[in-house]
Amino acid sequence: PDAEYFPGIGKIPYKPDAGPEDSLVFKHYNAQEEVMGRTMEDWLRFSVCFWHTFRGTGADPFGFPTLVRPWDDGSNSMANAKRRLRAGFEFFTKLGVKYWTFHDRDIAPEGENIKESAANLDAITDMALDLQQKTGVKLLWATCNLFSNPRYMNGAATNPDAHVVAFAAAQVKKGLDIALKLGAENFVFWGGREGFHTLLNSDVRAELDHMAAFFRMAIAYKKKIGFKGVFLIEPKPKEPSKHQYDYDAMTVIGFLRTYGLEKEIMLNIEPNHTTLAGHSYEHDVVMASAFKMLGSVDSNTGSPDLGWDTDQFPMDIKNCTLVMKTIVEQGGLAPGGLNFDCKVRRESTDLKDMFIAHVGAMDSFARGLRCAVKIIQDGVIPKYVKERYSSFESGIGKKIASGEATLEDCEAWIQQNGEPPRISGQQEHYENMLNFYV
Amino acid sequence: PDAEYFPGIGKIPYKPDAGPEDSLVFKHYNAQEEVMGRTMEDWLRFSVCFWHTFRGTGADPFGFPTLVRPWDDGSNSMANAKRRLRAGFEFFTKLGVKYWTFHDRDIAPEGENIKESAANLDAITDMALDLQQKTGVKLLWATCNLFSNPRYMNGAATNPDAHVVAFAAAQVKKGLDIALKLGAENFVFWGGREGFHTLLNSDVRAELDHMAAFFRMAIAYKKKIGFKGVFLIEPKPKEPSKHQYDYDAMTVIGFLRTYGLEKEIMLNIEPNHTTLAGHSYEHDVVMASAFKMLGSVDSNTGSPDLGWDTDQFPMDIKNCTLVMKTIVEQGGLAPGGLNFDCKVRRESTDLKDMFIAHVGAMDSFARGLRCAVKIIQDGVIPKYVKERYSSFESGIGKKIASGEATLEDCEAWIQQNGEPPRISGQQEHYENMLNFYV
Amino acid sequence: PDAEYFPGIGKIPYKPDAGPEDSLVFKHYNAQEEVMGRTMEDWLRFSVCFWHTFRGTGADPFGFPTLVRPWDDGSNSMANAKRRLRAGFEFFTKLGVKYWTFHDRDIAPEGENIKESAANLDAITDMALDLQQKTGVKLLWATCNLFSNPRYMNGAATNPDAHVVAFAAAQVKKGLDIALKLGAENFVFWGGREGFHTLLNSDVRAELDHMAAFFRMAIAYKKKIGFKGVFLIEPKPKEPSKHQYDYDAMTVIGFLRTYGLEKEIMLNIEPNHTTLAGHSYEHDVVMASAFKMLGSVDSNTGSPDLGWDTDQFPMDIKNCTLVMKTIVEQGGLAPGGLNFDCKVRRESTDLKDMFIAHVGAMDSFARGLRCAVKIIQDGVIPKYVKERYSSFESGIGKKIASGEATLEDCEAWIQQNGEPPRISGQQEHYENMLNFYV
Amino acid sequence: PDAEYFPGIGKIPYKPDAGPEDSLVFKHYNAQEEVMGRTMEDWLRFSVCFWHTFRGTGADPFGFPTLVRPWDDGSNSMANAKRRLRAGFEFFTKLGVKYWTFHDRDIAPEGENIKESAANLDAITDMALDLQQKTGVKLLWATCNLFSNPRYMNGAATNPDAHVVAFAAAQVKKGLDIALKLGAENFVFWGGREGFHTLLNSDVRAELDHMAAFFRMAIAYKKKIGFKGVFLIEPKPKEPSKHQYDYDAMTVIGFLRTYGLEKEIMLNIEPNHTTLAGHSYEHDVVMASAFKMLGSVDSNTGSPDLGWDTDQFPMDIKNCTLVMKTIVEQGGLAPGGLNFDCKVRRESTDLKDMFIAHVGAMDSFARGLRCAVKIIQDGVIPKYVKERYSSFESGIGKKIASGEATLEDCEAWIQQNGEPPRISGQQEHYENMLNFYV
Repeated sequence: PDAEYFPGIGKIPYKPDAGPEDSLVFKHYNAQEEVMGRTMEDWLRFSVCFWHTFRGTGADPFGFPTLVRPWDDGSNSMANAKRRLRAGFEFFTKLGVKYWTFHDRDIAPEGENIKESAANLDAITDMALDLQQKTGVKLLWATCNLFSNPRYMNGAATNPDAHVVAFAAAQVKKGLDIALKLGAENFVFWGGREGFHTLLNSDVRAELDHMAAFFRMAIAYKKKIGFKGVFLIEPKPKEPSKHQYDYDAMTVIGFLRTYGLEKEIMLNIEPNHTTLAGHSYEHDVVMASAFKMLGSVDSNTGSPDLGWDTDQFPMDIKNCTLVMKTIVEQGGLAPGGLNFDCKVRRESTDLKDMFIAHVGAMDSFARGLRCAVKIIQDGVIPKYVKERYSSFESGIGKKIASGEATLEDCEAWIQQNGEPPRISGQQEHYENMLNFYV
Repeated sequence: PDAEYFPGIGKIPYKPDAGPEDSLVFKHYNAQEEVMGRTMEDWLRFSVCFWHTFRGTGADPFGFPTLVRPWDDGSNSMANAKRRLRAGFEFFTKLGVKYWTFHDRDIAPEGENIKESAANLDAITDMALDLQQKTGVKLLWATCNLFSNPRYMNGAATNPDAHVVAFAAAQVKKGLDIALKLGAENFVFWGGREGFHTLLNSDVRAELDHMAAFFRMAIAYKKKIGFKGVFLIEPKPKEPSKHQYDYDAMTVIGFLRTYGLEKEIMLNIEPNHTTLAGHSYEHDVVMASAFKMLGSVDSNTGSPDLGWDTDQFPMDIKNCTLVMKTIVEQGGLAPGGLNFDCKVRRESTDLKDMFIAHVGAMDSFARGLRCAVKIIQDGVIPKYVKERYSSFESGIGKKIASGEATLEDCEAWIQQNGEPPRISGQQEHYENMLNFYV
Repeated sequence: PDAEYFPGIGKIPYKPDAGPEDSLVFKHYNAQEEVMGRTMEDWLRFSVCFWHTFRGTGADPFGFPTLVRPWDDGSNSMANAKRRLRAGFEFFTKLGVKYWTFHDRDIAPEGENIKESAANLDAITDMALDLQQKTGVKLLWATCNLFSNPRYMNGAATNPDAHVVAFAAAQVKKGLDIALKLGAENFVFWGGREGFHTLLNSDVRAELDHMAAFFRMAIAYKKKIGFKGVFLIEPKPKEPSKHQYDYDAMTVIGFLRTYGLEKEIMLNIEPNHTTLAGHSYEHDVVMASAFKMLGSVDSNTGSPDLGWDTDQFPMDIKNCTLVMKTIVEQGGLAPGGLNFDCKVRRESTDLKDMFIAHVGAMDSFARGLRCAVKIIQDGVIPKYVKERYSSFESGIGKKIASGEATLEDCEAWIQQNGEPPRISGQQEHYENMLNFYV
Repeated sequence: PDAEYFPGIGKIPYKPDAGPEDSLVFKHYNAQEEVMGRTMEDWLRFSVCFWHTFRGTGADPFGFPTLVRPWDDGSNSMANAKRRLRAGFEFFTKLGVKYWTFHDRDIAPEGENIKESAANLDAITDMALDLQQKTGVKLLWATCNLFSNPRYMNGAATNPDAHVVAFAAAQVKKGLDIALKLGAENFVFWGGREGFHTLLNSDVRAELDHMAAFFRMAIAYKKKIGFKGVFLIEPKPKEPSKHQYDYDAMTVIGFLRTYGLEKEIMLNIEPNHTTLAGHSYEHDVVMASAFKMLGSVDSNTGSPDLGWDTDQFPMDIKNCTLVMKTIVEQGGLAPGGLNFDCKVRRESTDLKDMFIAHVGAMDSFARGLRCAVKIIQDGVIPKYVKERYSSFESGIGKKIASGEATLEDCEAWIQQNGEPPRISGQQEHYENMLNFYV
């Protein structure tokens, strides 16, 4: 229990004047520094995910595991699970993040049956609770892995076999119990297999109806046990499914509205999923926020030229700025946060690569925060946008916006006022202004 | 008025034994033949679009017009507009379709101001009404072009300038008037510029609120004048906008539900738009139908390797079969139809290419209909699908589906029944069965 | 040794009148039937791949193995390897294919060191040779797996560490030895990790120079040992690499020409890789054939809406027709063949799905062959194409094509002959003609 | 002739301390400042393109022209052409660029026949020569528009009709004459229609043979008249063609090598084309440079979520840095340059948007240059890369790289040296180091 898993690496310090090779220091992230009324830590609410960072092996569809961790003997034993957890909390603490996230199956081995699985979870979460209390690290969110076990190959909540749906429901019940126990601030649903591989064998309407029924059961249980965390759906367009029902932010909002669930569930947006859906990096963050549905962000990135989820560490300052601008404008993400749903490349085999990757991403988002705050405090770009829509603050614009106008009113107004002026959209000017800050 | 614009081409006959080079005959489409209780004509409700087929020039972003039509002098005159209309009805008639579609600006030149534009529309629609009556060709749908005029460059209903929104509203008022006059069975909204080019200068929530307000004005006016046609939104993900709000079927359904418009508006699905949104060809047709929102289909295709809208004539029998299977399963498309929102390639410069392209597409959909009917009447594939979901007809499945189950019920049931069996999804078997019919 | 691994399934018969559910019969593939001067078997030269079909587990990046095979105990033992091989030959024989393919590591477990690996290969290939002789099944091609072992994570021939390059070279030496022993008709190189994940850490020119050096060593050794099989490079644009140097057919041809290797190596085209590179399904088959570099085909398919390699069984008759048209036009593929580099979906968990998938694909290619032969024998489409280029058979066209014309000649000729006529490309007519046959 | 077309806008000054709204100043580009031994002007060799900036109308496939320029009456007259040219040189001068580029048809109206077209070009180029001499602005490159005129709809050099190929040849002859006259430093070939729309009607091998023959004629004529400019092919994967033969850098290099033209022609890389081909922004610049084939760069950008060419102004500092790093490493681009093949958005309708867009892009590349120079002068990242490949400098690595090793040597060496060590690729460390500079 007193073993040190990352010997030689201490708490990552803030050294703004460090050089390019200094990789185990923050050059931009200064947790306690106050910007725009809050500490950076408060705005950013960084979280480390357990699955990639402590269960990732470096295996890919064409290659065997590459990542060898000294604390991990590769077994499914409880002892191994416990070592991983201790290594995790050492990592969180040295890195200086205040949150972690996990799937049920990441932290405790699945047993022979649901009772054994539950018992494993009970034992591990006892230990996790203790580690949380000792370190002050909190649980940003928990989630259930309803996609890795072969039983879920045809879906969990949307499986054509009710037996599987019932199994998933039982698993979520336990997941909510441990989320409550560990004080999770949110609970995430990612439906990686809630979709189809071919429409030929699928009754999509039945599957979506079942998915809604499933969420209703979870909501009822959440209320019953008094779990106060926010329910979040994480959209993704495809992979592993050929098509996932939770395609993107607007599709999920549509689903929630169709089934009357929009007051009970918000969104956890992952930019790598957003770009796979054909949108720009920040799109789903912006759209979810516009409809007051942005609950949390899985702050990662993909490569725009790749058609699958690479879960890379976000290193692009402009993208980080655009995400943070939306977050600051909506007054922060709490009780959500920025969760690094990222994995080191399978070629990044050194232990210190785990730190370097997180440090680089935290620095990128810290720069993004600083840029975003400067944009908002300067107020130049926001002023341009406000003026662009100012015609809706009075006259025919106000009537239209408020729902008081009719087509006939508009026609009469145009007969009087004629052709509108041509007003430049000034895209390049906006881009150039943005570059002033980034 | 008595000029013949397609001399040498008569009414396209049905000749099932024609050879590969016989291009001006139907080999599969036999309008009056009855299949599964209706004529082929009734199931397919083919429509020719006026914009591509009578206003298309062959221009593309890198090239000047290639298509020279003997009846078109290239001018914006009313006389030219009238010749085009007569050529159109000759084409519809010789091709043997019962429906046509148009944008307001396709059929009549835009005037100096909205009064002049309206007067032009009045004159042309008088003539169109006469031609409709003489030929029996009906108006499947009308729509307003709210994207070509420079005034709409920053959007129509979502323009940041209320002046432009008012102009668009006035244009839609007139569009509804002429739709009523010509007995349009539907009215389509395609929001090509309802989106953004950069999020930097955009207030997306304001724009979507305005879009909803715009639809409410149109619905009120429709009811006031007694227009009975169905309102349809046509989704498209992008192009010309970088991002169009009506991204795909589920996004539009989400928008309608968010703003309480889902009872007033259905969907017109264009498969080329569906594939641009990252879905399979038939996806949005299937999804819209599953939620009883499928109103009509713009039956075209793209090339899967291209990232823009090519509006090609649909020639793939498997795709046509999958679309027709959904349509037959929902009992037909009426009052919608299959509208050929397709253009001959700009290299297909012969007049007869106009016929060949439509004939090829009609034959493809006729084959698709025959295949779909055979699949449904044989019942083999539907039987497999029904069995796949049969566990929801009783026991725990029925309880889950009906909303009576709780997570605790499911847990208890799993404690008794244990691990579910692994049931093959049989994708290749379904694909092989489909190939039996196609 | 006498165990039957697929009890209840006999040799797949040809029953052209079978129904849609009859999945263990050929409805179109009739091995000994002669078409256009050869048996179908001869034209199609079907091959089963060992990796997907006998080593595939159904694991994907988000899920554990789903495919349980009664002969496979999951171990890396030689006994297990031998059972898999016997199951394989039973499968090949019952399916009625005459060829198989493998990677070295598919058939024999990798040992502690290269000597042990070689000894394992020796033992297994003794058995394979025996099974080949008993069954008459031959080895279409062998290949070395230079991508799964962690040592190859940064590349094999293009690894920045010469130690790894040397290891890969040693592995290929043994691979060529066993290819010779088993009478492989070809030898394939697929460079899944010959590329990069980020240009930041890569010297691309050095890597490509090393790749060429590597091929030169292999060619020298091949000649030395008297291996007569054809060397084939299999292009793929990306995955697992972010970018693979062998991007597509034309890129590989460019590489071969750059390094003077074009006489020693041909191409093995996989259509799923072609579509991932942004081309149409048949594109690389057509281009490789046009430059007389088409050696073999990995006859699979992807889904056009997915950005990763799904290796699905080819079931689209039109695509199969287009590939077979090129193959028949070039006089066949021998010594190459149609290798099913395909895997059953991970949800297709029944043993019989292995047969159904192959049968469906073989029937699809058999239909493709029949259609292609009809197109070529009818001669209608080929006649159109020939006429389209006939202006190069005489006059200025002949001078240009033969390299005898100058710009000045062309100018003079145009001064006399003026503007060219506008000739329709007739795309829709061609598509419609194609549909006559498909 | 003395009219001022951009009144109120003077020569754009360098003001490094200007604010975000100051859009008509350079904040980073300081033409005469010396960095790494050359002026910024010398490293960057900026060029304005005439087609987008002086012939662009804002029309798109769904909309009419939006851009109204006071000097352009919309006619095809010579007087209009001359006003545009004068406006152009005023713009180049005020912006402070030293180069321009054009297509023949941009600057002079096409006549009724080639003689008239040539006469128009003669008159306009007299004037252009005069303006070049007066202003000191030089011609980076000229090119022929072989794609806009309907005659080229089926291709120019690859047209199935030799008559069209001859016409294109005559046009290129004149294009080379005027390039010589104006002292063009390069001559570009972009084959927008050298490809196909459907393989069904295409003989790709014949077309590529004709393309090679066409280049040979151009090379012969170039030598004959003593034109010293560099011939450059500009790759693009598709659009307007479904498939363009010059797909990307490696494809073009392959074409040149296949036909023995690699000594006569280099490459002009456009990053927006590179990303459309499925590569990362800087990929083709890096690859062309690695093979010493990088001649010039069309410095623009696209949006990664769009599947067509948007020709946006490059505003991403990281991308500009990566391109400039390659250019500085190869010792500069001369006689090539950075040509802004970019167009203002069609919504950017103000005259000053023309300046803002170029200024923003020039500042972005100036920042890119500064970052790249710092990376190279610091030497940290280059040192890491060099060390990564150091094993090829001696021992078995050197033998492999030099072509002296055999497979047997490698096997023997591995038998002695065993398994290679696992060396981290350190991608995140490289990305983090890059962020230090960007």
